[in-house]
Amino acid sequence: MTRTIKLAVIPGDGIGPEVIEQANRVLDKVLAGGDVTLERTEFKLGAERFLATGDTLPADEQAAIADHDAILFGAVGGVPGDPRLKTANIERGLLLKLRFDFDHYANVRPCTLFPGVTSTLADPGDVDFLVVREGTEGPYAGNGGSLRTGTPHEVATEVSVNTAYGVERVVRYAFETAQSRPRKKLTWVHKTNVLVHAGSIWQRVVGAVAAEYPEIAVDYMHVDAATIFMVQDPARFDVIVTDNLFGDILTDLAGAIGGGIGLAASGNINPDGTFPSMFEPVHGSAPDIAGQQKADPTAAILSAAIMLDHLGLTTEASRVRDAVRADLAERGAAPRSTAQIGDAVIAQLPA
Amino acid sequence: MTRTIKLAVIPGDGIGPEVIEQANRVLDKVLAGGDVTLERTEFKLGAERFLATGDTLPADEQAAIADHDAILFGAVGGVPGDPRLKTANIERGLLLKLRFDFDHYANVRPCTLFPGVTSTLADPGDVDFLVVREGTEGPYAGNGGSLRTGTPHEVATEVSVNTAYGVERVVRYAFETAQSRPRKKLTWVHKTNVLVHAGSIWQRVVGAVAAEYPEIAVDYMHVDAATIFMVQDPARFDVIVTDNLFGDILTDLAGAIGGGIGLAASGNINPDGTFPSMFEPVHGSAPDIAGQQKADPTAAILSAAIMLDHLGLTTEASRVRDAVRADLAERGAAPRSTAQIGDAVIAQLPA
Ligand SMILES: CC(C)[C@H](C(=O)O)[C@@H](O)C(=O)O
Ligand SMILES: CC(C)[C@H](C(=O)O)[C@@H](O)C(=O)O
Repeated sequence: MTRTIKLAVIPGDGIGPEVIEQANRVLDKVLAGGDVTLERTEFKLGAERFLATGDTLPADEQAAIADHDAILFGAVGGVPGDPRLKTANIERGLLLKLRFDFDHYANVRPCTLFPGVTSTLADPGDVDFLVVREGTEGPYAGNGGSLRTGTPHEVATEVSVNTAYGVERVVRYAFETAQSRPRKKLTWVHKTNVLVHAGSIWQRVVGAVAAEYPEIAVDYMHVDAATIFMVQDPARFDVIVTDNLFGDILTDLAGAIGGGIGLAASGNINPDGTFPSMFEPVHGSAPDIAGQQKADPTAAILSAAIMLDHLGLTTEASRVRDAVRADLAERGAAPRSTAQIGDAVIAQLPA
Repeated sequence: MTRTIKLAVIPGDGIGPEVIEQANRVLDKVLAGGDVTLERTEFKLGAERFLATGDTLPADEQAAIADHDAILFGAVGGVPGDPRLKTANIERGLLLKLRFDFDHYANVRPCTLFPGVTSTLADPGDVDFLVVREGTEGPYAGNGGSLRTGTPHEVATEVSVNTAYGVERVVRYAFETAQSRPRKKLTWVHKTNVLVHAGSIWQRVVGAVAAEYPEIAVDYMHVDAATIFMVQDPARFDVIVTDNLFGDILTDLAGAIGGGIGLAASGNINPDGTFPSMFEPVHGSAPDIAGQQKADPTAAILSAAIMLDHLGLTTEASRVRDAVRADLAERGAAPRSTAQIGDAVIAQLPA
């Protein structure tokens, strides 16, 4: 019996298309000869598209994307400070819109320091944790405004919106994830001593859900303290669950200590399956090195592996991860092009 | 002509009193024989006081503290999870209340990797930057609430409040600071691509103030990217200016890479001089090691040096910093007690 998977591909801007090209090659290779067929539709969205047509995310294209089993996303965003992009907000209008509209409430971002990879830390230890970042509310709600804008009397607000519904489902997802891992540890991160209302809802929900998972060892850290532990003893972490903004910050830091943002993968998961989940490298579009084959496609390739797992293709996912692991362990010091890294990972896959 | 400085001392909880004791000894020593006299008043505030009397910050004591030239603050907070502290919020009711009521809008937190100090980073380079954290608004405004609290339908909000007035004065303070330093660089940090309203006000204000300081090289970083640079190339930073919450997070991270939170000093500055400024180590009360002479008083001692600078006693401030620098360079690997570190710094001061 063959299975057809409909994959929406959004390569995006800058290095996005280059890294996605390699992720697609790896996907083709690992699925070759099997009974799974990928049926890809490419969507040209991002800053370049906006500059050409004025579109950010037209409704018909969003509906078309929704009609897929998964989304592979590169990176979006133009050259910082480009005046023509002043009226656009590609991040909010495209990337965050997809995360919110497709209810990607569990943004999963693993951090593993693979053998052979040097960390920025002097003594990182055995780093292998996973951040579950809330993806659909908190300070990212887009609920803010300004009064007397641009005058010396301006007041601008941003409202972090946190619901029991929204917190509970991502916390539960994180507990389920912790339950499936050998160490069975969960650290929740917030700033309960200052953000007392948002902090309280998180605290209550974590407490209630924890009672259902007696095997999981739970601890709490303020976000500021979490950054200290992340650079002093990252090996202590197993699963971290936190809000949208703290998750954004901690996962960039995690990327840096885990061998660099060129290796950091993510999945924007809609666990209910109502909408397609979306898989993307944590890095941005890096317009300064775009088109030069300088970008590391490993993060995109590892994001494709998270996608395979999500689609139930766990053997294929492991093969991709093992190939990346072998490649990282064997790579020399010489710089490699984007395509060369893709070639090398493909060469590590079983024939 | 002699000068009397009225110093309010709030040792606080946990290791607070131990580290403040050493800071006071260093102050006495560096001022001995000069024409400056410290007149100290001690205020017993914090979790211990709350547990004993139910008081957090009585109005008459706050008025008495206001009638001083400066405040030396240890650390406050009880044992995490202590049920008797459930109804108290020592952080908001005492520490943040002082920062807000005394209009400490410039929270300055230097990060210098002193010779002889090992960083958690493999290759930190020459780290010497200063974070100017906004201290009186942003997500710390305490402007939030919850609806249907404790039910499955709860909604909890936190409002970040940002005013042109509040942002402009701290940004100006940061530019002035950058102007006084040799490298003349200022990095402002926010999350303009997501927090568009708060981000815009910061962007406009920084742009306007920058025009008055043509000598300063200004750049911008998203807060997530800033954590990456901080662990990959912290030497690139000179002065950083950012909002209250991002500043909280970045300065703990800075403390960790600058040799540990035991060395991280701060000043909560009211540049107008309307209220006394407050000087405190960045670390917390660490109840787990309290009373054991295990705490490093260096952060408290360096905070006292920032206070001396603020009071115009720049020679004395430099002497304290030089003594700390010499002590850090010479200390061996053997652990030292809190008092031993105080002794050692005092021994390094000019006789
Ligand atoms: C580009 C930006 C909107 C995005 C975020 O803030 O979530 C990015 O930083 C990320 O972490 O995926
Ligand atoms: C104790 C807490 C309220 C405080 C803060 O968040 O500002 C602390 O983390 C700090 O950095 O001084």
